[in-house]
Amino acid sequence: MPDCDCDYMLPTKEGWEEHYDNCISKWNSNVPCPKYADGSIRLLNKNLAGMQQDFIYHLGLDTAKYDLKSMFGDVKFVCMGGTKYRMKEFAKHMAKILNIDYEANNLSKHSHRYAMYKVGPVISVSHGIGISSMTILLQEILKVLYYAKVKNPIIFRIGTSGGLKIPAGSIVISSWGLNGTLEKTYDLPVLGKIRKIPSVFDKRLVQELQSMVTEEDGFITYSGGTMAADDFYRGQARLDGPFCDYTSEEKQSYLQHLCALGVRNIEMEATAFAAMAREAAVRAADVCVTLLDRLNGDQVTTDKELLLKYQERPMVIVGRYIAKYYEKINKT
Amino acid sequence: MPDCDCDYMLPTKEGWEEHYDNCISKWNSNVPCPKYADGSIRLLNKNLAGMQQDFIYHLGLDTAKYDLKSMFGDVKFVCMGGTKYRMKEFAKHMAKILNIDYEANNLSKHSHRYAMYKVGPVISVSHGIGISSMTILLQEILKVLYYAKVKNPIIFRIGTSGGLKIPAGSIVISSWGLNGTLEKTYDLPVLGKIRKIPSVFDKRLVQELQSMVTEEDGFITYSGGTMAADDFYRGQARLDGPFCDYTSEEKQSYLQHLCALGVRNIEMEATAFAAMAREAAVRAADVCVTLLDRLNGDQVTTDKELLLKYQERPMVIVGRYIAKYYEKINKT
Repeated sequence: MPDCDCDYMLPTKEGWEEHYDNCISKWNSNVPCPKYADGSIRLLNKNLAGMQQDFIYHLGLDTAKYDLKSMFGDVKFVCMGGTKYRMKEFAKHMAKILNIDYEANNLSKHSHRYAMYKVGPVISVSHGIGISSMTILLQEILKVLYYAKVKNPIIFRIGTSGGLKIPAGSIVISSWGLNGTLEKTYDLPVLGKIRKIPSVFDKRLVQELQSMVTEEDGFITYSGGTMAADDFYRGQARLDGPFCDYTSEEKQSYLQHLCALGVRNIEMEATAFAAMAREAAVRAADVCVTLLDRLNGDQVTTDKELLLKYQERPMVIVGRYIAKYYEKINKT
Repeated sequence: MPDCDCDYMLPTKEGWEEHYDNCISKWNSNVPCPKYADGSIRLLNKNLAGMQQDFIYHLGLDTAKYDLKSMFGDVKFVCMGGTKYRMKEFAKHMAKILNIDYEANNLSKHSHRYAMYKVGPVISVSHGIGISSMTILLQEILKVLYYAKVKNPIIFRIGTSGGLKIPAGSIVISSWGLNGTLEKTYDLPVLGKIRKIPSVFDKRLVQELQSMVTEEDGFITYSGGTMAADDFYRGQARLDGPFCDYTSEEKQSYLQHLCALGVRNIEMEATAFAAMAREAAVRAADVCVTLLDRLNGDQVTTDKELLLKYQERPMVIVGRYIAKYYEKINKT
């Protein structure tokens, strides 16, 4: 049994593994579990408890002017995605399927940075492009969930990506993130030295999400590795950026190597998302649609209409999961 | 004399060094200079010449549907910054000081990613937060400038940052960028291996920009090193993020060490910006205002009004430079 008061270990066949995957107590026995027994987030940074007021700068919120508990205390799910447009659409989608009266209201408008909407138990929020932009948002969301004493939240990311040997329009639910030097870690320099934080997603959540898809949906859903690249062009072996000094053969052989490692798609956030969610002991899943098969090309030539249709697919799956899970919570 | 046809080497005292700083021919003699003799961008990726159509995905532009030469052929300056709001304001500011009739029109609206405005010879465009988001924008802008055959463009970034031992509201014009492991490089994994690309800015441009500031402006302008962090919290030694396992003393000692290395401020883009502009032989400058002195704190508590006033300062300096330089070009 794990030596902590985390209630995360559910009585499933993979209970122990589940807990291990999500509780940092197991890989650093000097720290307590980052969750309280009631499921609310603990956040292991002791400085937070001593702060009279906390300015959550990029969301334009603070703990003195806003009552975060009353604003966000009922949150159960956070869904992040790159663009404001997509997350506004997701909020609308959730209002519809949860049957909630809703008028779009960007709660972080004053910050000029991210766009955040709330529909009942769901926060829908944009994170921009890339790890640095996403981690600012994610860390500030974790602080909001902490101050609001939210219990057992689940965080999703819905995104777009390039697929590897799978048809355009497929869905990939990430099992783990791979960094640019082919390791399953998020590499973050802290005080001048690189830290390598494991980037593995919650296994059960991947399975649960995958079980939401039916044959009638008309697209294929994969689980597997996701490369989080630091760049869209050279960082993803594209031949069509302003800079490129490798050959088409070198590119193909690199992408084939990624396939052999179990990578199904390439985006720009997975490693850091898996790592930070795990550090906070929050269940998280990265659900991306593929816009092209990178083995066949680099350019995103998908027409606008098809692109919007593709982008709906992660929304449908995550929306279905939330609706089902929320119904279950409300019944108990 | 440098062994290339680049006209960048101007007859200044530091001509050679200037050229060296900006021409990759000098550090890789196997490649030609990335500029044509008339000053237009060459872009050394040979694949571009063979493409019938180029979709510039994140700007929502392509070379078949849009006549980039007629849209952007007259561009002389590009100014980038984090938020759409700031770049919309900068476009207005430039219209005013260049005396150009202008109505805000977001040229990359369809992409839902970045916001791009054009005022006469100036592109004003948002790049989001962090290196990955900024490099997508910068690389796509370089492609636009290439297709539009723009000659000798200058690219600015106007940003916000945390200062080191300088008063809040100061301006830092970056001489070089420092990465998270304290090297003057932009580290990008390409085909699985890290490349280290030098991150030094154009010296003359730093001096020219600094000479634009007068005592009446009411703020101090510094030139010096800029750390480009990959994270806003631990990556900048903040104590107020969700995760923090170092002490206040360790933080102070790290920031003091940065000061000793010549770092004046911390933001999240400088290394990659310096490196990529240099690779393309384009003159570039990073002009940031500091919102706080990081030796005294972590939280950005600046009130809205003061924050907007601070953010105007880089706009004023860059705007003044553009107005002066543009007048000079028009006279010759």
